[in-house]
Amino acid sequence: MIDYDRFFSRSALKSQGSAIRKMGVMAVRVPDMISFAPGYPDPVTFAWAEFREIARELLSGADGTVLQYGPTRGHKPLIDAIVELLATRGIGATADQVLITTGSQQGLDLVGRVLLDPGDVVLVELPAYTGAISAFKNTEATLVGVKQEADGIDLADLELVVARERAAGRRIRFLYLVPNFQNPTGLLISGEKRRQLLAWASRADLLIVEDDPYGALYFEDAATAADTRPIKADDEEGRVVYLSSFSKTLAPGFRVAWMVAPEAMTSKLELVKQTEDLLTPSLDQHIVYEAYRRGILVERLPMLRKFYQDKRTLMEQTLRQELGGQVTWPEPKGGFFLWASLPAHCSADEMLPRAIEQRVIYVAGSAFFVDGTGRHIMRLSFSLPTPEKIVEGVKRLARVVKEELASQKAPVEI
Amino acid sequence: MIDYDRFFSRSALKSQGSAIRKMGVMAVRVPDMISFAPGYPDPVTFAWAEFREIARELLSGADGTVLQYGPTRGHKPLIDAIVELLATRGIGATADQVLITTGSQQGLDLVGRVLLDPGDVVLVELPAYTGAISAFKNTEATLVGVKQEADGIDLADLELVVARERAAGRRIRFLYLVPNFQNPTGLLISGEKRRQLLAWASRADLLIVEDDPYGALYFEDAATAADTRPIKADDEEGRVVYLSSFSKTLAPGFRVAWMVAPEAMTSKLELVKQTEDLLTPSLDQHIVYEAYRRGILVERLPMLRKFYQDKRTLMEQTLRQELGGQVTWPEPKGGFFLWASLPAHCSADEMLPRAIEQRVIYVAGSAFFVDGTGRHIMRLSFSLPTPEKIVEGVKRLARVVKEELASQKAPVEI
Repeated sequence: MIDYDRFFSRSALKSQGSAIRKMGVMAVRVPDMISFAPGYPDPVTFAWAEFREIARELLSGADGTVLQYGPTRGHKPLIDAIVELLATRGIGATADQVLITTGSQQGLDLVGRVLLDPGDVVLVELPAYTGAISAFKNTEATLVGVKQEADGIDLADLELVVARERAAGRRIRFLYLVPNFQNPTGLLISGEKRRQLLAWASRADLLIVEDDPYGALYFEDAATAADTRPIKADDEEGRVVYLSSFSKTLAPGFRVAWMVAPEAMTSKLELVKQTEDLLTPSLDQHIVYEAYRRGILVERLPMLRKFYQDKRTLMEQTLRQELGGQVTWPEPKGGFFLWASLPAHCSADEMLPRAIEQRVIYVAGSAFFVDGTGRHIMRLSFSLPTPEKIVEGVKRLARVVKEELASQKAPVEI
Repeated sequence: MIDYDRFFSRSALKSQGSAIRKMGVMAVRVPDMISFAPGYPDPVTFAWAEFREIARELLSGADGTVLQYGPTRGHKPLIDAIVELLATRGIGATADQVLITTGSQQGLDLVGRVLLDPGDVVLVELPAYTGAISAFKNTEATLVGVKQEADGIDLADLELVVARERAAGRRIRFLYLVPNFQNPTGLLISGEKRRQLLAWASRADLLIVEDDPYGALYFEDAATAADTRPIKADDEEGRVVYLSSFSKTLAPGFRVAWMVAPEAMTSKLELVKQTEDLLTPSLDQHIVYEAYRRGILVERLPMLRKFYQDKRTLMEQTLRQELGGQVTWPEPKGGFFLWASLPAHCSADEMLPRAIEQRVIYVAGSAFFVDGTGRHIMRLSFSLPTPEKIVEGVKRLARVVKEELASQKAPVEI
């Protein structure tokens, strides 16, 4: 038997799986498990009938390009549609600045490969999206955390961290942010703070990587479209790389997303994409384009906002009912996630096996913290489970949390 | 205006586009261009009606997983189908050794990321597939060429190259091969040589990366299924990573391919794939699985072999007629490519602009040689153009070649 370790690259030897995806795999194997783990959209929201009709037309055989190789940049009509869509978000981009990616995960990976050398520093929030953490770590970059406040990243801490890293002689490359309904916290960065971030990037001479999968899914009882205006919209110097996706609004199974960057960078990103997968699948790009062209995407957004808002409200209500005061969270104003803190001495990691016994699952917060903190927090995703499962799952979770709190108190009482 | 060069990683600064894809982009822009450049399958061979019916059924909405996120490893029924398909090629693989990739290009990229550190040596044939060259170069590996003979890689040169690289203190990681109807040469490695390669890998303690997109497309007038038996089929020590694809047989637009590696390596490849794109698109995997399950793939193979064999025959006939003796090539026994050599003093690179003037295009051979040679060779792909275009394109090419030969002779005669 060959020991393959000696054949592996340094980064492969270091590579680790995503905690979120491990949870997802585990959850589907246990019968009657209620999963608050993966941030999946609900397939009942997908435009099945419309996709069926679109696929029927596209697969007529009249247009060979539907199943053929195509340009690495992406299907040109889809690129033009994205330019149009970006304009509705306040972003004035040209087609030359757009690259279609195989999911935003590919966009994050390309950013890592184009901007990072081993040892470079990437600034991320505490907490940050695990998929970005993995992608950047793969380049052997060092991830350094910046604190958050109620309205997102803490600018004072950002300044301190930059000064500290530079004093230590390390090269910082960019700041990674999810300004709209962040995965995992659900936080929304305020408009004022977004402008300050641009000024900071200019002053510090750094780039910002803005990841925006959830912006279109704001909850009308708590936020407006204006609140989700991307940082990129006011980026006059060309310091922001912007990523967005059709995964949360049309369907993730198409793996169609995009990124916008200054043209010189988009060319480099395209070259790396070419070696990664040549192109994003053609049929999927054609379907997504047709769904956009026929107005299916835009007309469904109000329904989607209401749909996920209702699930969020139900999860909050049930949590309050079952665990009022024992867990706390910032109100999700959009997106898929509720970020629930236990008392600081509790460990969501250690509680997880007991939760699985009770047939409920979440992602332990520590996975999102590059500094090893966050052990008392759970990411609860309300997007996929049915209302009945949200209620039942929170009840199961409440039993686990109460037991945990009781057992934590016990030693003190003795 | 920001100079982004100072933000780019070392590998991004070095990255270069694929010559093949540049040709492809150029060719579609010129009206009435006949392209022998990109190795695209012909969309008239795609099972449009069957795909349409499959898509209609899959998009009923009854099964949410069709458009949902799914496992990084791939759609489980498709993995099991691939295990079955591999058995027909003589490869006894388990499901745990299979990873579905977003095209074989992703497989090559993952191999690079999992097996290569900067400065490591990869052995490739002279010439070798450009997509593999780019993927491996992205890791800052050094690509070292090994000569070819009529039946593929030259084993004596392989031994010499290994000895030379090791004497120079460089670490060799693997040998990359396309044993069946190689892109670009169309060469088939003999059965005897395949067994010798396994013995060599064991002796040299190295791995072989075997890329097999064309194996199913052997031409029955020149080869048999037995001739295409993968090296992996006789790999008892676990030294071979095997890649194959549905792109040339079903359709490339699905971007569904797979790789087989020892389980410990497949786990690493999966982790890197997770950071690259999370999963290969769900709908595409479901369609490809259904096409396999319903027998559509297997029943079409005889038609495909005949279809591309006829195009190969027509290209050879026309070349002989138009340029008999002035260009030479090894007979393609399968696949998509004819590897045509001009007299050694001619340059296919320099001739290319004149070919484009004549509205015919090919890929200049130098793109495939990591040692900078091969300038007198053209890769002519016969897979996509219609019979009429093959004839007309070769006639145009013949005019260009004759002019080139006349102009090359002129100075000698003066």
